[in-house]
Amino acid sequence: MNDNLAGKRNPWLLPDAVEELLPPAAAGLEQLRQSCLERCARWGYALIMPPAIEYLEALLSGVAHDLDLQTFKLTDQLSGRMMGVRADITPQAARIDAHQLRREGPVRLCYSGTVLRTRPEGADGSRNPLQMGAELYGHAGIESDVEVITLMAELLSEAGVGALHIDLGHVGIFRGLSAEAGLDSDAEGQLWDALQRKAAADINELLDAFGVASPLRDRLAALASLSGGLEVLAEAQERLRGAGEAVGEALDSLARIAEALAAGLPEVTLHFDLGELRGYRYHTGVVFAAYTPGVSGELARGGRYDDIGAVFGRGRPATGFSADLKALYRVTAGRRDRHAEPGAIAAPWRGDTALRERITALRAAGETVVWLLPGHEGEAADMGCDRQLSSTADGDWRVEPL
Amino acid sequence: MNDNLAGKRNPWLLPDAVEELLPPAAAGLEQLRQSCLERCARWGYALIMPPAIEYLEALLSGVAHDLDLQTFKLTDQLSGRMMGVRADITPQAARIDAHQLRREGPVRLCYSGTVLRTRPEGADGSRNPLQMGAELYGHAGIESDVEVITLMAELLSEAGVGALHIDLGHVGIFRGLSAEAGLDSDAEGQLWDALQRKAAADINELLDAFGVASPLRDRLAALASLSGGLEVLAEAQERLRGAGEAVGEALDSLARIAEALAAGLPEVTLHFDLGELRGYRYHTGVVFAAYTPGVSGELARGGRYDDIGAVFGRGRPATGFSADLKALYRVTAGRRDRHAEPGAIAAPWRGDTALRERITALRAAGETVVWLLPGHEGEAADMGCDRQLSSTADGDWRVEPL
Repeated sequence: MNDNLAGKRNPWLLPDAVEELLPPAAAGLEQLRQSCLERCARWGYALIMPPAIEYLEALLSGVAHDLDLQTFKLTDQLSGRMMGVRADITPQAARIDAHQLRREGPVRLCYSGTVLRTRPEGADGSRNPLQMGAELYGHAGIESDVEVITLMAELLSEAGVGALHIDLGHVGIFRGLSAEAGLDSDAEGQLWDALQRKAAADINELLDAFGVASPLRDRLAALASLSGGLEVLAEAQERLRGAGEAVGEALDSLARIAEALAAGLPEVTLHFDLGELRGYRYHTGVVFAAYTPGVSGELARGGRYDDIGAVFGRGRPATGFSADLKALYRVTAGRRDRHAEPGAIAAPWRGDTALRERITALRAAGETVVWLLPGHEGEAADMGCDRQLSSTADGDWRVEPL
Repeated sequence: MNDNLAGKRNPWLLPDAVEELLPPAAAGLEQLRQSCLERCARWGYALIMPPAIEYLEALLSGVAHDLDLQTFKLTDQLSGRMMGVRADITPQAARIDAHQLRREGPVRLCYSGTVLRTRPEGADGSRNPLQMGAELYGHAGIESDVEVITLMAELLSEAGVGALHIDLGHVGIFRGLSAEAGLDSDAEGQLWDALQRKAAADINELLDAFGVASPLRDRLAALASLSGGLEVLAEAQERLRGAGEAVGEALDSLARIAEALAAGLPEVTLHFDLGELRGYRYHTGVVFAAYTPGVSGELARGGRYDDIGAVFGRGRPATGFSADLKALYRVTAGRRDRHAEPGAIAAPWRGDTALRERITALRAAGETVVWLLPGHEGEAADMGCDRQLSSTADGDWRVEPL
């Protein structure tokens, strides 16, 4: 009630965890957005623009329950069916690859657009992130995972992120062990949750309750502590020895990806965590997230999500990443080289053809020219101008310091 | 029911009047968007990024009822209050000028973002337009109207629209006459509606019913036929002679704007229609729309909307325009000069430092370089490549025709 009253008094207040960008931050974010999309294009990723609303079953097919909870629901007045406002663009890209493009070979797609979420993720999360991402379809090998991780690292470096840490995991390790233990999806979910919290007591209690015996039990419990540098992979080989083929293949993929990344991105710190899989909604293979020291949340995240497109008519191997450009802009705004924009040029408001042509030519040359509206002739400096157009004796116009 | 079944069978179908853009159209639209924003910047318009959702009272304060009907409503799970998905960005810009920026002098803002509408406007209207617009606050004279109309014309020309027609009207003429007749807002609404349809019989019947007597009656009825070229303004002076001061000032403003536009935009055809005001949701002064022959809908529209910001704490003079960039792209895609993008360069997937450095350098130089993933080495042409990187005898790499 108080809240409503406050709202009526202050109609300019934005809802919690909903942000807007004013000058000059909005122009800075736009520049970041353009440079990310340009870089993706140079890697061969074609831009797509999926719609902000779709039928709910299209948005939520094959994704985890938490995305459903995060999705705003709307009634379509034209059909009476339920629509959702997208909370994630990746499933839309998968639909486009599977149904709209229907190509056989690898397909590279990128996008940037606003997504909306019913609740913020984390304490300073946003409900209206500007999601940007790149996805690679149609190739199942580790090379495509390496490609998207390398592209992600390049975008982040270009954006001005300094030291870059990439966390790597693999959904297949936990899933493989859980399948060997015969856990149903409910039991798997509980164990997953305890693993995310690295809650050893809870994990042991659950393994007891589910009747999982050693050595399988030891392998599942080990995941909580398999976290660290490259040495974790060797340790995992040791502690998960004897696990099934799926687990071995997952570990092997991870090792090969790590090797390629260490060679291609020597400046990036790699970190491995075989138990941390939080937030991976539809992933089936390697998963990764990028961090930088001094910033708590991840800057970008992604992973492999094969066959999400099956519901759209065609299962395809898929891997990719996404980032919230607004969050990335906040982190990097102070770090990027700022090309100080030159000041604008003030022009008097006058119906003079020579003046009009001069203004057009200056703007075409990249200058900003602002008309001084009648009554505001003295406010050129307030408008960001440092020069002005003045008439010469022979009826021409020249740019002079203000 | 059938619809639902169809939906379950075809989860890739988009809702009616909701579109998405695939390659290469999405990149074309992105280029149009960037060039419009760049041009606005060169005119001194600063970019803002208002959020896609706000509290409903913020979105709908001071705007017409039809915008309410077009706005999707959502419950904010954090506050329990109603939010709306914006169906128009202009009121958000007014809020930002009035409350966030709070400057005294003229403020120029521009924006581009998706808006959503519950129903399409017109037969081939979109429910997810990409709205782009520019707004000028803090100046009440005709010079600011001339500025935004000139900017609109320049953006449309640059986008590749050929012959440009601009329709001009003035909300103050009808409003002034209606106030003189003492019509209440309901009666005014009915008469407005009949005028839009240019339904002479209905207009006469309503004027009878409201007891409006000559000469006021003749003046109101005359609006339906005051449509045509510059001569309409002289005719209006004649037929509306004797009307109150507000009407005279509106006509005078319109004539001065027309004069300035005729001088500054000699290539644009000006058309006047003193009765046509459909779709102007919050306008108070001059209103305008841009058309091109062979395209039925308007390409852009706008007008003066003083004091919309009053509810946000500060009434300010305001004028501006907006356009749906998706519609503009469809109209102009075939007309713009197409710089055929050069083909991409295919690169083998190999962990070779010299190769990696070569690829980075090529991309930095603006080339598109696509990695050929294992198993797809023969598909370079399918990826849009016309050249490839080949290793030389001395361990270097060079670009060769495919």
